[in-house]
Amino acid sequence: CPCHECWDQSKVDGDIDKSCPISPAAERLRYILGDEDDAPTPTLFTEMDTLQHEGGELEWRESARWVKFEEKVEEGGERWSKPHVSTLSLHSLFELRTCLQTGSILLDLEGYSLPQIVDEVVERQVEDGLLAPELREKVVFVLLRKHRHQTKKPIHRSLADIGKSSSTSECLSVCVSTYHSQSRSMNDISDAPSTDQLKNKFMKKIPRDAEASNVLVGEVDFLEKPFVAFVRLAQATTLGGLTEVPVPTRFLFVLLGPQGKSKSYNEIGRAIATLMVDDLFSDVAYKARDREDLIAGIDEFLDEVIVLPPGEWDPKIRIEPPKKVPSADMRKSVFSLNELGQMNGTAGGGGGSGESLDGRFCGGLFLDIKRKLPWLLSDFYDAFHIQSISAVLFIYLGCITNAITFGGLLGDATDNYQGVMESFLGTALAGVVFCCFGGQPLIILINAQPDNGVIDYMELRLWIGLHSCFQCLVLVATDASYIIKYITRFTEEGFSSLISFIFISDAIKKMAGSFKYYPINRGYNPDYVTMYKCDCQAPTQGNISLLSKKLHSLSTSVPQLNGTALDWSQLSKKECLKYGGSLVGNSCKYVPDLALMSFILFFGTYSMTITLKKFKFSRYFPTKCRTLISDFAIIISILVFCTLDYLLNLDTPKLHVPTEIKVPDSPCRGWIVKPFGKNPWWMYLASFVPALLVTILIFMDQQISAVIVNRKENKLKKGCGYHLDLFWVGILMATCSFLGLPWYVAATVISIAHIDSLKMESESSAPGEQPQFLGVREQRLTGILVFVLTGVSIFLAPVLQFIPMPVLYGVFLYMGVASLGGIQFWDRIKLFLMPLKHQPDFTYLRHVPLRKVHLFTLVQIICLAVLWILKSTVAAIVFPVMILGLMVVRKMLDLVFSQHDLAWLDDILPEKDKKKKEDEKKKKDRKKSKGQDDDSNEEVRKMSLCTLIHVERIVYSCYYGHSANTTQ
Amino acid sequence: CPCHECWDQSKVDGDIDKSCPISPAAERLRYILGDEDDAPTPTLFTEMDTLQHEGGELEWRESARWVKFEEKVEEGGERWSKPHVSTLSLHSLFELRTCLQTGSILLDLEGYSLPQIVDEVVERQVEDGLLAPELREKVVFVLLRKHRHQTKKPIHRSLADIGKSSSTSECLSVCVSTYHSQSRSMNDISDAPSTDQLKNKFMKKIPRDAEASNVLVGEVDFLEKPFVAFVRLAQATTLGGLTEVPVPTRFLFVLLGPQGKSKSYNEIGRAIATLMVDDLFSDVAYKARDREDLIAGIDEFLDEVIVLPPGEWDPKIRIEPPKKVPSADMRKSVFSLNELGQMNGTAGGGGGSGESLDGRFCGGLFLDIKRKLPWLLSDFYDAFHIQSISAVLFIYLGCITNAITFGGLLGDATDNYQGVMESFLGTALAGVVFCCFGGQPLIILINAQPDNGVIDYMELRLWIGLHSCFQCLVLVATDASYIIKYITRFTEEGFSSLISFIFISDAIKKMAGSFKYYPINRGYNPDYVTMYKCDCQAPTQGNISLLSKKLHSLSTSVPQLNGTALDWSQLSKKECLKYGGSLVGNSCKYVPDLALMSFILFFGTYSMTITLKKFKFSRYFPTKCRTLISDFAIIISILVFCTLDYLLNLDTPKLHVPTEIKVPDSPCRGWIVKPFGKNPWWMYLASFVPALLVTILIFMDQQISAVIVNRKENKLKKGCGYHLDLFWVGILMATCSFLGLPWYVAATVISIAHIDSLKMESESSAPGEQPQFLGVREQRLTGILVFVLTGVSIFLAPVLQFIPMPVLYGVFLYMGVASLGGIQFWDRIKLFLMPLKHQPDFTYLRHVPLRKVHLFTLVQIICLAVLWILKSTVAAIVFPVMILGLMVVRKMLDLVFSQHDLAWLDDILPEKDKKKKEDEKKKKDRKKSKGQDDDSNEEVRKMSLCTLIHVERIVYSCYYGHSANTTQ
Repeated sequence: CPCHECWDQSKVDGDIDKSCPISPAAERLRYILGDEDDAPTPTLFTEMDTLQHEGGELEWRESARWVKFEEKVEEGGERWSKPHVSTLSLHSLFELRTCLQTGSILLDLEGYSLPQIVDEVVERQVEDGLLAPELREKVVFVLLRKHRHQTKKPIHRSLADIGKSSSTSECLSVCVSTYHSQSRSMNDISDAPSTDQLKNKFMKKIPRDAEASNVLVGEVDFLEKPFVAFVRLAQATTLGGLTEVPVPTRFLFVLLGPQGKSKSYNEIGRAIATLMVDDLFSDVAYKARDREDLIAGIDEFLDEVIVLPPGEWDPKIRIEPPKKVPSADMRKSVFSLNELGQMNGTAGGGGGSGESLDGRFCGGLFLDIKRKLPWLLSDFYDAFHIQSISAVLFIYLGCITNAITFGGLLGDATDNYQGVMESFLGTALAGVVFCCFGGQPLIILINAQPDNGVIDYMELRLWIGLHSCFQCLVLVATDASYIIKYITRFTEEGFSSLISFIFISDAIKKMAGSFKYYPINRGYNPDYVTMYKCDCQAPTQGNISLLSKKLHSLSTSVPQLNGTALDWSQLSKKECLKYGGSLVGNSCKYVPDLALMSFILFFGTYSMTITLKKFKFSRYFPTKCRTLISDFAIIISILVFCTLDYLLNLDTPKLHVPTEIKVPDSPCRGWIVKPFGKNPWWMYLASFVPALLVTILIFMDQQISAVIVNRKENKLKKGCGYHLDLFWVGILMATCSFLGLPWYVAATVISIAHIDSLKMESESSAPGEQPQFLGVREQRLTGILVFVLTGVSIFLAPVLQFIPMPVLYGVFLYMGVASLGGIQFWDRIKLFLMPLKHQPDFTYLRHVPLRKVHLFTLVQIICLAVLWILKSTVAAIVFPVMILGLMVVRKMLDLVFSQHDLAWLDDILPEKDKKKKEDEKKKKDRKKSKGQDDDSNEEVRKMSLCTLIHVERIVYSCYYGHSANTTQ
Repeated sequence: CPCHECWDQSKVDGDIDKSCPISPAAERLRYILGDEDDAPTPTLFTEMDTLQHEGGELEWRESARWVKFEEKVEEGGERWSKPHVSTLSLHSLFELRTCLQTGSILLDLEGYSLPQIVDEVVERQVEDGLLAPELREKVVFVLLRKHRHQTKKPIHRSLADIGKSSSTSECLSVCVSTYHSQSRSMNDISDAPSTDQLKNKFMKKIPRDAEASNVLVGEVDFLEKPFVAFVRLAQATTLGGLTEVPVPTRFLFVLLGPQGKSKSYNEIGRAIATLMVDDLFSDVAYKARDREDLIAGIDEFLDEVIVLPPGEWDPKIRIEPPKKVPSADMRKSVFSLNELGQMNGTAGGGGGSGESLDGRFCGGLFLDIKRKLPWLLSDFYDAFHIQSISAVLFIYLGCITNAITFGGLLGDATDNYQGVMESFLGTALAGVVFCCFGGQPLIILINAQPDNGVIDYMELRLWIGLHSCFQCLVLVATDASYIIKYITRFTEEGFSSLISFIFISDAIKKMAGSFKYYPINRGYNPDYVTMYKCDCQAPTQGNISLLSKKLHSLSTSVPQLNGTALDWSQLSKKECLKYGGSLVGNSCKYVPDLALMSFILFFGTYSMTITLKKFKFSRYFPTKCRTLISDFAIIISILVFCTLDYLLNLDTPKLHVPTEIKVPDSPCRGWIVKPFGKNPWWMYLASFVPALLVTILIFMDQQISAVIVNRKENKLKKGCGYHLDLFWVGILMATCSFLGLPWYVAATVISIAHIDSLKMESESSAPGEQPQFLGVREQRLTGILVFVLTGVSIFLAPVLQFIPMPVLYGVFLYMGVASLGGIQFWDRIKLFLMPLKHQPDFTYLRHVPLRKVHLFTLVQIICLAVLWILKSTVAAIVFPVMILGLMVVRKMLDLVFSQHDLAWLDDILPEKDKKKKEDEKKKKDRKKSKGQDDDSNEEVRKMSLCTLIHVERIVYSCYYGHSANTTQ
């Protein structure tokens, strides 16, 4: 037993750590596997057939198969089991080892058909004295019986057959004795693949270059000791109907034994089959020179197996394939002559690679363009997938809801001088430009702030915009985006959590607003319906006669009993108020049903979306169907609740988009804002100072959102383009200022939703392999389409007007909640509520003490709470400074937590690059009038809809000398 | 290598099926384990400590522990991992084997303190030449270092300490050389258990009689080859602070080795620890006579281990403990001298054991009473658990809702002559009697049918009741309940599914009714609020003046502008209609908010209950808290939505119970129905025929419900009492007939809900062991309380009136849905929607072809559909016959399906007893006027509220000569 010797020996030698490299087995493997230049061996598909007795005939029936995991034919179920990890017994592995030690091993046999191969094998056995010559015919006869495969279609038996489950062994001897004397040419195997084989859909689960290994085990009554053969063919050959699928056979393992131990033979068959699909052993099998090489392969396998104690696990439980299996490369590398080093390379990929500091002027920008150019074509054709349609519709609805809500605020603030129209046009323009030319086209741009469109203020605003644009370009040219290296998980997750919370709170607030706009008549008693009235009463003074004439023309169809009084009663609420009437009655302020209906629409949309998204993980319907439903969850929910709303025909608030483009009808403003004329000359220079504040905010907002989109977990492949992003944001700022449109900056939550709706998963190849997250459909087309659609929304108005606003608020709630998912910070908050023993097995919990984790979370919570309070009060203007505070807090954490803990909970701040950073700081300091931007490294978007509102409001109020607290 | 030899040998001998009984290892085990009379060995708690270097001192630190599964101290987390299955490497097991072959084995050492034991062990090593005498002191010094346990409190370190994670080996030699020359009495181990040990809450997870085994592994620099010792003490002794908990130590395994292989030592330590908690090996360890016995134990263990291939599983994944582990008895039995037979006994227990056929008169009844008597006391004290409170409230609400809905129907039908009052009183009376004396007190009785309380009909009804009672008693006396043996899963699940569907459809129908009673004003426009009116108009003819006088007295507070007209406008809807006025206006038929509010209450209660019930399986909050929330899910949901309803103060329909007991004010009826006087004499005899129909229905309804309650899955321990049940149902029938109360029979869905709310689960003992379903709190108290509460509901009216009916409908919906859970039929229906590969791993799917399963399900679905259609049409009277059809269908399935398939999908009909059955049939035939009851073996409750309505209606309509289609 070389394997065991090795262990004993290694013990003595004091080297028991790793699969005893001095053993002859390891030496052998090192010799045959050492050469790395060899072409990789093909994937093996293994099929195990057992000898069965059916209706008086012997036949080989498929009982299990392996691509990577085992699939078993259920005993009575006529079905494939789920793919599962093969649980073997140690016993069967040792028995297999014995089998290979004693049986015939035929390597590189020239085989072209099964009968010929069987002949050669039997011949060898006879030669070696393992088989009595008189049994030759019988063995050949048995080995050439027909193979019946477990196809998807059940094997139809007549009703009479059912119940007849006679045991195999019963008439085995009869059959064999009856048939064995017949001509051997009467074998059941044909050479060409059958149509069943060719039609088998399972083929698509097997890699193209795959070869088959066939395992045949069975018991016969004429043998006294086992007949074992392991055959490797020189060339993979299709051996008729031997294999379920038309894959050429390379290996053949035969085990025929005396009767009574079929269970044991089955286990040995499973053992060799499991070995054949093992990456390392299949290499060994392909390259083995002799029997000893194979034995050495088994010994290596035995050395690496994982053992479960019999008292703690039931072997009957089928273990589901793990999410990820360890690569066999580690095991192979032990035997490789080359160094292991090459495998410890960096993971590569896009995330975070854009922040390199190029010394040259505009270096980063050129690098970004250079990085992005090769992807230009694929940026478009990568979009062709049904998922994109769902993403476009989803994000489009998010964008127009945003634009409308924002436009409404803008309209209110400017008395409809500037409003929804500008908001739509601006969104479309900025979005299309950014998605076409930006560095990270997955980012969605959204209005940055509402402003008050007074004309000379517009002029100042233009100048601030121009200064900001210039400053952005300077930041681009000096590669200032390098500082995103200092935006760690702490900042990133804090920022996105805050925005998600704001999204959620906004959605709920708007929903709660319904209960205020449409008050419910509490204490309403249906019996008193006769008492509930709301009448329009004529004003007590004023020229009633004039009004009544007007009204006569309006309501001619109404029977008029007594003059003016009745006319008033025929007025609607709005008309009544318009003509100066007053509403009298106990039901005037109440609106029935609408509040509750809005709530049902809101909550229904939200929960249906959540439910449908989860539907992907249910067991019902085929995978494709489930994926489709999950991808279109939001669209389906919106459609369902729009239909419900339509059917109930209640006057819920609807989405109304403008239906025509018109130049603002103000006399002093055209399409383009003129830069000079209204303000004194020093104003043009002084606007540099507020512009700086704006720049900082825009810069931080844009870059943190970009960091979140580009984060490693998203597995982006096309790289990032922080400099290019900023460049276009700057350019768009100037353009929008000229056109009198709002400014645009990256929207965190909607960008995350965009990413989420474009995620790709691998279609698993081997049965049982878990689908892996592959990355995101990185392309420009969805973004462009979203904004083009936004632009042409004017023409979509007739369709869009059926969408109730509460449904859209439900979508917003979903967006907010969904963007919290997968954030470590959020996971850590949940830990507070979990008792120790129920906490999930997060990696950082294994390495960082719980109280440290809690402390870290607590610090983050406090930071967010402070930011939230700031946002809600007048102190909002100190925001940039407070965000700096966040950064300082993170820096101070270095003192409280060890670098080890921080590495698990957060990222490490770049210490090595500190010097470089400081150099850069100085450089920047020289170029900027104030060193302020360095301090404002981190920034939190205050409101999802109007980030910069406070800054601009300050600017505005400074200019006009009063505070404008009109919004919301 | 005896183990391997054995395999080789067995191969040659052709006996490789089961752990080679001829091997010396098996021989040894058979010798030491064979004697079954030995007392069972104590449970072992195993603790593994590793040698660590902390702050300049050596110490033993706990690194893992085992009760049954492994719990590991996380490296940096200072926390216990979740209990998981120990995954070992084969390597470490073989190394351990080598260790035990070469190291010192001290069996039955007389040890009283750790220093003494260590001395003896070291002495032995020196004697055996395994340890150089000069190393003696050093080894003793190391072995007596302090043990630090992983307690729940984190080990507080100063901030300065953090980050210092110097490796152990670095200054190891320094420490040892510094300390080893000191006096050996300076050991860190005290003899008495420390307070930390005594306070350890983990103690409650360890069985009382447990003993400890301590595993110590570590690396030291002064050894050249490993120091291995395995010690078994003659008596289990508490060795100071050696163990985390104050459990006496029995075994000690020490492995000290040269530096550099601590990982390997750890694995060996884990291997021996896992072996020590293995049921079979721990037996071996307790009974081993020498080294070879231990080796034999390892070999047996190796022979039984489950092996996972390295390419299909990642050893880093922690495997969760399985739901159930195989008992070690099977493994032990191989070595036992006794036969295996005794383990294949029947499962025993209560379910289904009551249907034995006793030849004697009333034999079954007496057996039932005999079976029930011993439990009489425990039937009361078993109820003392907080769960019972929840169950009582839940079932109480179900019962009164039922009683009220039913009473309402009854009241409508009899013009309030008989109504809610009777319904309440009857429920209370029948329920209390049945729960006190019935055979299965978990069954809840519920009104069987509404009737029309005309007095001479009452007399006939009394006679039918008396006849039925007599017939029931005859059925009891003749042990007719024996036929429940023929109620298989097919019938049982069909019946309960149908009733669940009826429950669900009723709940939804009632809910949908809200939209009819409180119509929503579709197309309502808030702007036209002035147009929506509903006026009461005076009747065009009739004496207005008289009415107006009446009204003046009613509405004196209202300002009266012009006489009669205004008075009309001040009337409420009801008053208006009462005085003959008509309602005119476009809002008269609409009721705002109530329909939507009802829907929110209904759906909210349902989904909140579902969510809270699932909360038990969430990770949040301690287990006790979660169980409490889950147990009280329904009560919490009801409270929440009652509060919501109260806050919104809308006039949703509420639960109104009668507030006083009064004798029906009909002149010709008192409290007791008089048996004679109104009908001709032959009527008293002729009522035997309709009584027979009633008896059949009552019998089937009662017995199928009882079968469902008593089914095996519920693990009832106190046995059933079908005869006793029927006896009391009969007696109550007569009593209720005399009192003019409705009849009562078992309610399937509410009984299932009762069972579900009383389910017990084991509090898992060993960490990681899954809680097992233990059974149901079988007692009489909850039932009695429910009905006593129902009786006193009159006094609870002020509280109950706050409960809106939609909330109760939500509870009904939940009951219906919940009673579908766990039904195999329902699982099989779901299979239709699942693609093959996603289907769950049901056992029957492994054994029965899918198309057979689908066929079986389809037959059941068609049967239910037919029954459903029958129930909904006038054909309802043929119900008993159709249920017979169900039985026939099941019988015919025997022809289509093999017994093998039916055994998996259903139960087998008792074939052996067929003759007996037929005898019984004849007997019954003799006793009954018609052979009808045999044909009506199976019965389906038509409606949850009124099972017998159709039968009684026929009787009624026969009597009165017209059909009474008044209900629903």
